[in-house]
Amino acid sequence: MNSYSPVTPEIVEALRGLLGADAVSVAQAEIELHARDQSHHAAHAAEVVIYPTTAQGVADVLKLANERRIPVTPWGVGTGLEGNSIPVCGGILMSFERMNKIVALHADDFQVTVQPGIGHKDLNAELARFGLFFPPDPGANATVGGMLANNAAGIRTVKYGASKDNVLRMQVALADGRLITVGSRSIKQASGYDLLHLIVGSEGTLGIITEATLKLVPVPEHMSAVVAHFPTVEAAVQTVVAVRGSGLDPAALEFIDATHAKMLREAEGVDLKDYPTLFMEFHAALPATLETGLEAVREICAEMGVIDFRATTDPGERKRIWHARHHSYEIMVRSHPDQQFFIMDVAVPISAYPELIAFVGEVTRRDGATAYMIGHAGDGNVHVEFPYASPESFERSMRLNGEIVMKALALGGTATGEHGVGIGKAKYMPYEHGAALDVMRVIKDSLDPNGILNPGKIFPTG
Amino acid sequence: MNSYSPVTPEIVEALRGLLGADAVSVAQAEIELHARDQSHHAAHAAEVVIYPTTAQGVADVLKLANERRIPVTPWGVGTGLEGNSIPVCGGILMSFERMNKIVALHADDFQVTVQPGIGHKDLNAELARFGLFFPPDPGANATVGGMLANNAAGIRTVKYGASKDNVLRMQVALADGRLITVGSRSIKQASGYDLLHLIVGSEGTLGIITEATLKLVPVPEHMSAVVAHFPTVEAAVQTVVAVRGSGLDPAALEFIDATHAKMLREAEGVDLKDYPTLFMEFHAALPATLETGLEAVREICAEMGVIDFRATTDPGERKRIWHARHHSYEIMVRSHPDQQFFIMDVAVPISAYPELIAFVGEVTRRDGATAYMIGHAGDGNVHVEFPYASPESFERSMRLNGEIVMKALALGGTATGEHGVGIGKAKYMPYEHGAALDVMRVIKDSLDPNGILNPGKIFPTG
Repeated sequence: MNSYSPVTPEIVEALRGLLGADAVSVAQAEIELHARDQSHHAAHAAEVVIYPTTAQGVADVLKLANERRIPVTPWGVGTGLEGNSIPVCGGILMSFERMNKIVALHADDFQVTVQPGIGHKDLNAELARFGLFFPPDPGANATVGGMLANNAAGIRTVKYGASKDNVLRMQVALADGRLITVGSRSIKQASGYDLLHLIVGSEGTLGIITEATLKLVPVPEHMSAVVAHFPTVEAAVQTVVAVRGSGLDPAALEFIDATHAKMLREAEGVDLKDYPTLFMEFHAALPATLETGLEAVREICAEMGVIDFRATTDPGERKRIWHARHHSYEIMVRSHPDQQFFIMDVAVPISAYPELIAFVGEVTRRDGATAYMIGHAGDGNVHVEFPYASPESFERSMRLNGEIVMKALALGGTATGEHGVGIGKAKYMPYEHGAALDVMRVIKDSLDPNGILNPGKIFPTG
Repeated sequence: MNSYSPVTPEIVEALRGLLGADAVSVAQAEIELHARDQSHHAAHAAEVVIYPTTAQGVADVLKLANERRIPVTPWGVGTGLEGNSIPVCGGILMSFERMNKIVALHADDFQVTVQPGIGHKDLNAELARFGLFFPPDPGANATVGGMLANNAAGIRTVKYGASKDNVLRMQVALADGRLITVGSRSIKQASGYDLLHLIVGSEGTLGIITEATLKLVPVPEHMSAVVAHFPTVEAAVQTVVAVRGSGLDPAALEFIDATHAKMLREAEGVDLKDYPTLFMEFHAALPATLETGLEAVREICAEMGVIDFRATTDPGERKRIWHARHHSYEIMVRSHPDQQFFIMDVAVPISAYPELIAFVGEVTRRDGATAYMIGHAGDGNVHVEFPYASPESFERSMRLNGEIVMKALALGGTATGEHGVGIGKAKYMPYEHGAALDVMRVIKDSLDPNGILNPGKIFPTG
């Protein structure tokens, strides 16, 4: 274990000297605002909160922190779900709130260069004027820096990929205060080691992203939506496989289980049946493509024994159809007043999805736990949402979490499809990676020998 | 610099003990067969050629080589263009000729697990029976292991991505003889450091790939082809930008310059005009999509002042239209008897493509060099092909190579889009990567402290 030094008044002064007095705060209120994310993980107080405005400022702080052995935890906007940005070892909390600008739009290249603190929804609002968008969408208005650091994904990954697939170039501040550039604005690059993808998803433990050039895609001119109910999970998943194999290139392919569909209907009267349900979305440059595509999807669903099939290319109707999916979390929360939620995340190869879903149903029934399943089925990714109101029900959901993770690993999957490792998944890393975890550790130690960068994450402690 | 030990008779015996007598050869003929690739780079003789048949065999050899400080250079089938697999420091040449099997097809997951020595064309011939294919296509029948090690790309990258985008999981033998697994068969993974992409493109200098699980896509049921001539390079490239921005998702978007078009026409009477030319291909699940798509492409080309536009969805006509592009290299070689070719590779952001192409034209004219340009324009990637027959013309092409690389870097591009660094591009790495090259070196030293893995590549020497 690394040992760290406290943030002394002298260090606070030094930070003020580097960043300006108004960029450094030890106020209790600000420390508390940056002590926990949106998950169940316990709050931890940093010793100082800072708001750099330039890459050089970030680098200068790291150099100081590295020399003085002070932990630095980067912070986007706190929407993490595994404690990824909780400052568990205290030290410096580095907020990117003031580095939230668009640096340059390269419209002809379908690229934009941004500071890491910009929210992806805010970015997309700006880009809409140019008919472009940055596709990864984890739901909340996460910052681009946080999305890249955690390789966030979301609903549209099945077509557009995760965050790691939508970034070309980054500027990164290393633990020792060097600023490096990784990747290239050239789409193709076969030049040396892919440090870009080493840093993406490393949760701020190898370096801190200070600027990123993102890939953009044209806003689709035409979209369609489908909701389909199936007699069994198997039928629903076979439909997922068939739609992916058809070449129809869905932009979303989402699953909710019968329990979740029932809850959504009962809570808000949304027009769903109590069956395993798929939501789909298709994007196309031409309306004719959508119409013929929907016919093909209808045929596939019919072959798989669909119980109910609704499809539309009308924008208003599309929103209605997707309402339940887009608002499923809020509806769930509203329908369980006085309860908190623990949301877990695993992913498996698509062929193992029915077995994973069946397993979750089995163990939650066995333990009498309430659980809702909602998944990015096109990616083999599922979230199990556990409401809890007591320490006992929380403990039970944690136990079930562990069982489901180990099942996903046994099925050739991963402990985390899109929420990252953070604190919560660290203990499963040896099971998922084996000796490769030692290689990760070697790389960590070689780039951050004093362990100042977001300590307590990814690697199991103790 | 690392210092290495020779391959003594005792080492040869030890290798025979590990792999079997028939898997180890010191015959001059076999050493010569593995001394150079398809490039101009000088031949170097290994001291022994080995043919492992299992991952454990690969790992055992590395353990021995690491203990005894003997270089190991992995070899696919020798189609590299930058000396990537030339054993410049002698030692052990590790051929993957006998590790060329399909390990498992996961059809429902659109994945296949293969040994690294399988040729991608051989693999695709097998996969065709299942309606699936592995999209990266560098032209030659490169092995999958070689493609992954060098992040090979090719014509279809604009739609399907490079090799790095089409691999999910690999087994890798490390320098010290450990076997690790990186990545996951789950499409989504946000679990720890992305060692998969660190190894891909590292040209065998960080570890040797012993097995890979690849992403597959459905064979497109319908394809169309377009050939279009433009008055200027600018008009051609603006068409590329517009087609990419249209959401029509081209599967190939290729450029040849007027000189190249003229040579192809004069050499074989192919139906091309002496103008900057684009070749395009579109893939679709439904024929109607193609027809409406071609209309949209025709309109875009017309807006850009196209001189001649031909499009077809007929498979026979499609082959005719693409014949000149697919056979451009052979036609060029045939039309320059008694000459050799040096093919260089750079890539830039698409907006810089016209400036890059203009620059190449300018400097080659200035020096009176013959040069043909052929490019994956949709990716901003261009190859300049220099015929040469004398030391003087070779030296001139090398000098021009350097000028073009530095221009590509000045335009925000890369020294190598798809051929890798190998020997030839190593000297440009400090210019492209700056301090990030030091980080690559730190990672190299931490994973291969004795420098046994493919020495003399990627990092500049001396």
